[in-house]
Parts: sequence; C-alpha cells; structure tokens
Amino acid sequence: LFLSPQPILYSYFRSSCSWRVRIALALKNIDYETVAINLTKDGGQQFSGEFQALNPMKQVPALKIDGITIGQSLAIIEYLEETRPTPRLLPWDPKKRAQVRMVSDLIASGIQPLQNLSVLKQVGQENQLTWAQQAITSGFNALEQILQSTAGRYCVGDEVSPSPGRLRLPPSPPETQPFKVDLTPYPTISRINKSLLALEAFHVSHPCRQPDTPPELRA
Amino acid sequence: LFLSPQPILYSYFRSSCSWRVRIALALKNIDYETVAINLTKDGGQQFSGEFQALNPMKQVPALKIDGITIGQSLAIIEYLEETRPTPRLLPWDPKKRAQVRMVSDLIASGIQPLQNLSVLKQVGQENQLTWAQQAITSGFNALEQILQSTAGRYCVGDEVSPSPGRLRLPPSPPETQPFKVDLTPYPTISRINKSLLALEAFHVSHPCRQPDTPPELRA
Repeated sequence: LFLSPQPILYSYFRSSCSWRVRIALALKNIDYETVAINLTKDGGQQFSGEFQALNPMKQVPALKIDGITIGQSLAIIEYLEETRPTPRLLPWDPKKRAQVRMVSDLIASGIQPLQNLSVLKQVGQENQLTWAQQAITSGFNALEQILQSTAGRYCVGDEVSPSPGRLRLPPSPPETQPFKVDLTPYPTISRINKSLLALEAFHVSHPCRQPDTPPELRA
Repeated sequence: LFLSPQPILYSYFRSSCSWRVRIALALKNIDYETVAINLTKDGGQQFSGEFQALNPMKQVPALKIDGITIGQSLAIIEYLEETRPTPRLLPWDPKKRAQVRMVSDLIASGIQPLQNLSVLKQVGQENQLTWAQQAITSGFNALEQILQSTAGRYCVGDEVSPSPGRLRLPPSPPETQPFKVDLTPYPTISRINKSLLALEAFHVSHPCRQPDTPPELRA
C-alpha cells in the first residue's frame, strides 16, 4: 500500500536539507524518484508556479508520498519514521529521542536558516562570508558542547555498531566548506562527521552522487 | 515518577518559543516552576556562564525535566507528547501529524530564526524593520497557502471542538506587532490565531501574564 506509487523527492544536490532526507530514505531502503529543482538556474526553479503550488515555502526538499506532499526535512523524516518504522532512525529511549531532536532542531532552526541562499542574498555580497561564519561558529560552539555529553560514535549514543538510530546530524561539509570555517575547535563534530560519511546511506545520498550533480562535481 | 520533582522552565515572557512550550505545558496540565531569563537585562542573562552550561545555545526556552535538560521548543513538545501522552497534542493520523509538524517547522525554522534578537542585532538598527517584515511576510505567504488546505478551526483539522490535538501554531501577535505587519492578506492565519487565543491554555501562558512580565505590560 505505502510503497506504490513510488515517492517523489523534490531535491537539489547541494541542499543540506535535501541530503538529510536522502539519508533517511537510504537508511530505510525506500526507493524513490528524484525531481531536481535547481535553486540557481532560471532565477531559481523553486519559484516556478508549478513548484510553488506543491510547496508554498519555495524550498527543497519536498516529498510526495502516500498521496500527500510534505515540506520541511524534519517533518518528512518524522513521517517516514512513523509510517515505515523499521529500521528505526530514532532511539527507543524518550530521553535519547529528545536529545536527537534537540540536536536536529538546533541545526535546522539555529544554523541552517541563517545561511540559506535567499538570506545570503538579502545580506548582500560583501557581508555574506562574515554573516555565514558567524551563524555557523555560534551554532557549532553550542553543538560541540552538547555532543560532548550526548555523543558516542554518533550524535546520541555510544554503540560501536553504526545503528541508524543514532544518526541524524546533517554532515557538515556542505555547510562549512564554502564559508571556510575552521573545524579545529570542533573535535567531536569532526569525528562524528567522519564516522557518518563512512556509512553507505551517507555515501549514496551524497551531493556529489545525485542525478542532478553536474559532471564536474561528480565523485 | 515523572511528576516529581517539578519541571523547571527557563523562559522569557515575550519569547514566542517560550510561549509555545508554556502552551503545551498548560494543555497537558503539567505543573512547573518558571525561572525567568531576561534576554535584554544585564546584557542578556542567557549569556551567563550558569545558563550556558544548562543550554549551550544560549536561548530560551529550556526545560529541566525527568533528570535531563532539553533545549529547542519543538523537541521539548515532542518529549512531553511521548512521555505524557494525554491529552494528545498531535492528531492520530500520521498524515495529519506530518502536516502539523510541517507547519510547526515552517514557523520554527522558516520564520522565527530570522527575527530573533541576536540576528536583528547583527542586521543593524536601520535595516531591522525591513528585514523582519520580509522574513515574516515571506513565511506568512507560504503559511496562509498551506493552512487554506489543512485548516479547520485550527491549523490542521476541522473539528469544531477545541481539541488540543489540532493546535501548535504559535500565536502571531508577538511576532507581528513589533514589526507592523499587515495581517489583511492572511485571513486564515488571523482567524486561527483568534480561535487559539480564546483557549484557556493560551490565556494562562500569554506573555502578558507571566511571573516575569513587567507590571506595565501585565493584562
């Protein structure tokens, strides 16, 4: 019932929030079709009337699934978790689940909104770098401190096996690389990021491996 | 077990995110103690070493409960829902739950982060009003369109009875009033906001009725 027809993910290869959903889909072994929404081409394909009708936020990702369209990456992931519970993405323990959600919300509300394309455009070319660095370092200072008490191999939890239940940190490179953020003060974030990138689900969903990744950025 | 000792909410009377958690606590009839964190006094009490140790994000709200401290308003609400399931805040239907979370995330990630105090400070005094108006109207345009398809009496759902399961829109006045946003283009948002403000849980948790509300703003 749930698996037919195939879900459609509206995605942009470099969007961190799209990557987050692609990771969840991969961890849960859900087949899906990608419709690429290029955020810079044609003045931004997310502003087309057709896409706006689908997601009034004019943002990716959006997932068409089970007859509805869901916007907002964390809302999508919670829906996948509720309707396709295995393998689990969230720990069983409500306290650990709260920690996972706190870390996810910190990233999704506290870091990412301040450095998305439309905000950077509003900030203006000459101030973009300082602005983005400030948003990231302020968020990462908090994140590093929180993870030092919650993390094991992954963000929350200390199991050596790469249990999907411990994940949900969006990998940092797409956020930090363009803004030249020094990761030295963030040993926990760096270590977890490295562990995550080694996982198959992170590999297949990586920005350099998507249907809309330009040839020169493929790897 | 869960109810002892009493939860402590670190809150600021005018913070919309704090209000959101106060509403959830009121809807679930959970007694709690308020510790006021004044975001403007003493250069911002959220920056004190003591508070930073508690919530590295240096933001309110934070809830100390069941031996852990949770930051991020939506993570707090999900935890309350999982550990104190009645009365429910989320609908039973996973699709409706997804819509509630999409609306909540849209507000918490798409609107609020762009107009919090620290961001407005960075934007600079002369640009603050335009910046905040732009963030709110862009978010409200999307929200109005989404709510027109999901809303009944409240954000998601069409039951006439004020079922707590249909709530979770943070009331708009604290967001819109200081920035003089014209609400005329948002009839659905305005109507829902009015219905919500009539509820007891919204009334008791209102910014003008908190322990830290200054006398001249009390009502």
